[in-house]
This record gives sequence, C-alpha cells and structure tokens, in this order.
Amino acid sequence: MKNLDTVVKYDSPFLEFVQTRYVDQAGQIKKWNWCRRPNGTKAVVIAAIVDIPKNTIMGMSTIPHLVVIKEFRVPLNDYEYGFPAGLIDPGESIESAIRRELEEETGLKITKINHISPPVVSSAGISDESIYMAYVRATGTPNKEKLEASEDIETMLLTRGEVCDLLQTPGIIFGKSAYCVMKCFSEFGSI
Amino acid sequence: MKNLDTVVKYDSPFLEFVQTRYVDQAGQIKKWNWCRRPNGTKAVVIAAIVDIPKNTIMGMSTIPHLVVIKEFRVPLNDYEYGFPAGLIDPGESIESAIRRELEEETGLKITKINHISPPVVSSAGISDESIYMAYVRATGTPNKEKLEASEDIETMLLTRGEVCDLLQTPGIIFGKSAYCVMKCFSEFGSI
Repeated sequence: MKNLDTVVKYDSPFLEFVQTRYVDQAGQIKKWNWCRRPNGTKAVVIAAIVDIPKNTIMGMSTIPHLVVIKEFRVPLNDYEYGFPAGLIDPGESIESAIRRELEEETGLKITKINHISPPVVSSAGISDESIYMAYVRATGTPNKEKLEASEDIETMLLTRGEVCDLLQTPGIIFGKSAYCVMKCFSEFGSI
Repeated sequence: MKNLDTVVKYDSPFLEFVQTRYVDQAGQIKKWNWCRRPNGTKAVVIAAIVDIPKNTIMGMSTIPHLVVIKEFRVPLNDYEYGFPAGLIDPGESIESAIRRELEEETGLKITKINHISPPVVSSAGISDESIYMAYVRATGTPNKEKLEASEDIETMLLTRGEVCDLLQTPGIIFGKSAYCVMKCFSEFGSI
C-alpha cells in the first residue's frame, strides 16, 4: 500500500482533520480520514509507582502503590481513570516533560525513571498521535497546588489489591494504556 | 467542569470532527476540538497467546508465543507493530467480533477468551473512541487467506525473548496498548 497525498479538511489550534488518498493492494485509489496534532507535538504518559513504608511484624517494609488519576475529559463528558499525561512543550526534553507533568498533575516528585518507550501511537486508525510511555518511581503526597482551571484531576495511590478491585468496578471509564498496565500490576504486583 | 454543546465541524463516513463548548473550573467558556466514530461504533483489540509444543530433555512442553502483527497504517504512512483489531459489526456480539477479527487478520482460531475489558478509551484528549481489550489463547498457523485489499498485514508469533528484542529494536512504531502488554510479557513471561 502507498499514500498519495494528504489535505487538511478542518483546522484548529490543537488538532486538525485531514484526508489522505492512498492506493490499496488491488491498485484502487481510496480515501482515509484522520486527525493529527499540528507540528507533530508529542505527549508523555506516566506509569508511576510510589513505595509507601509500612510497619509489619517482620519490621519496616514498603508497599508499592500505583498512581492513578481521575480526570474530567471533555470528549467523554465524564471522568477517565488513567495516568498523568501531557504535551511536551516546544524545546522541552522528554525527561523534563515527564517530571513536570507528574508534579503539575499530582504534586508527586520522580525519584527514578526506569524506562521510556519510543514514541508509540495511540490509535493508528484515527490519528498519528504518538506518546512516550514512561515507567517511573515517585515520592510525596498528592496535592492540587499546580492544577490549572481546565484540569479537574484527583490523584489516587492504589495497592495491587485496590487496583484489582478498581478493574472490577462497573461503570468506570479507563484509558487504554493505563488499563493494560493496571491489568499487569493486578496480575504480577509490578509494572 | 461541564460540557455545554457539541457541533459537527466536518463529516466523513468513519470519523467526524466535532467541537464542544465547556465551562472550566474558573467559570470560563472554552472550546475543545476532537473526533468521534459516527454512532459510537466500538472496536476490539486482541492480545493473544499461542502455546507451541516443544521437545525438551524433560519431555514435551509448550512455549507461550505472543501474537504481534505488522500492519500498514495510512495515518502513519508506515507500518505499526501491534495487535489484531477491528470494528464490531452492527448487531455483532463482542465475543463474535473478537473471534472473527483474529481469524480474518491472522488465520488463527481462539481456544479460550480469558478476559474482556470494559470499553476503554484510546486517547481521551482527541477522541471518545473506545475499544474492548481481549486477552485470549489461540491456536493454528498464521495465514493471509481472509485479508482484504486494504489490509497489508504480517503475523508474527514471538517468544518472551523475541518480544524483549523487538522492544529494543530502533525505528519500530508500536501501538500504545500493544506496547504496554508486550512490556508486561517481556518482564513477566505472561500477560
């Protein structure tokens, strides 16, 4: 298959709607409608673990808690349960965006970045939007000091058992990548 | 936060571009541009394991292989490494769509559906598109007999070690949910 050309059908500051003509494997010319970020702006999505100390009969140990946020999303007209995320600012490094977004959305600070994915695509049927998945360790107590007026976000730190329970709660809307990581955490106790 | 109204800005058969007016937490009226599937059509994404028998010095055992497809995607003008996926037909059950899409795209047959997620959203900043994540066991040998002219797909069955290698190969474009599940498989040998 091969793309011929792409034209903008509708323009807006953060998202544009475009149409691509392509040739399929039978040699037919067809059209595909999709949307893209102007200038190819990329985002970061942060899967963060906070280790919380706990007294046990064996002495002090830590329990890993997954950072999950509940955020109002205009396209859903509802709340999404997912991970802290946001667009990388012009000129900003990926690592700096990861540290900034986690702190702005949750008040937590990163102690270690374990892994950053290459750019991965959110939904290649409808967009070329791509994000970096970051797997990190963080510390602190959630707070809302740095939230903007258009950010309606609540932060939760959840144990493996609490994530298991959340995944089975009816009526909750999860983000796709967060769901896959939460499923992994619920099965294996780590991410 | 609260949505006021949504108008269609550009229309196409599989995707429409819309604009929502909403009130932020400071009482300001703002606009959000996003895209949606007409009629709220949902999709399935299939994380499948095929157990392949192998002779070892301990006797016969099976090695789990993750089903990964390499598919041409018009919005990327490139190939995406991800999971079999597709839209649910009108009137079709989720389970039936999962069985049909896996067989159409890879030639494999499902032996067990272990888990189906609730509808999870692909990228809530740009769309309300949602999909069901299915975790399944499958059997068979990959073939291209049921592919359509607009489907340019190659199927791979990968061991844990091969998935580890793939995740570290430069220049590959992964799908977001597939990446998270592949990362889990590479860490824990299961999904």
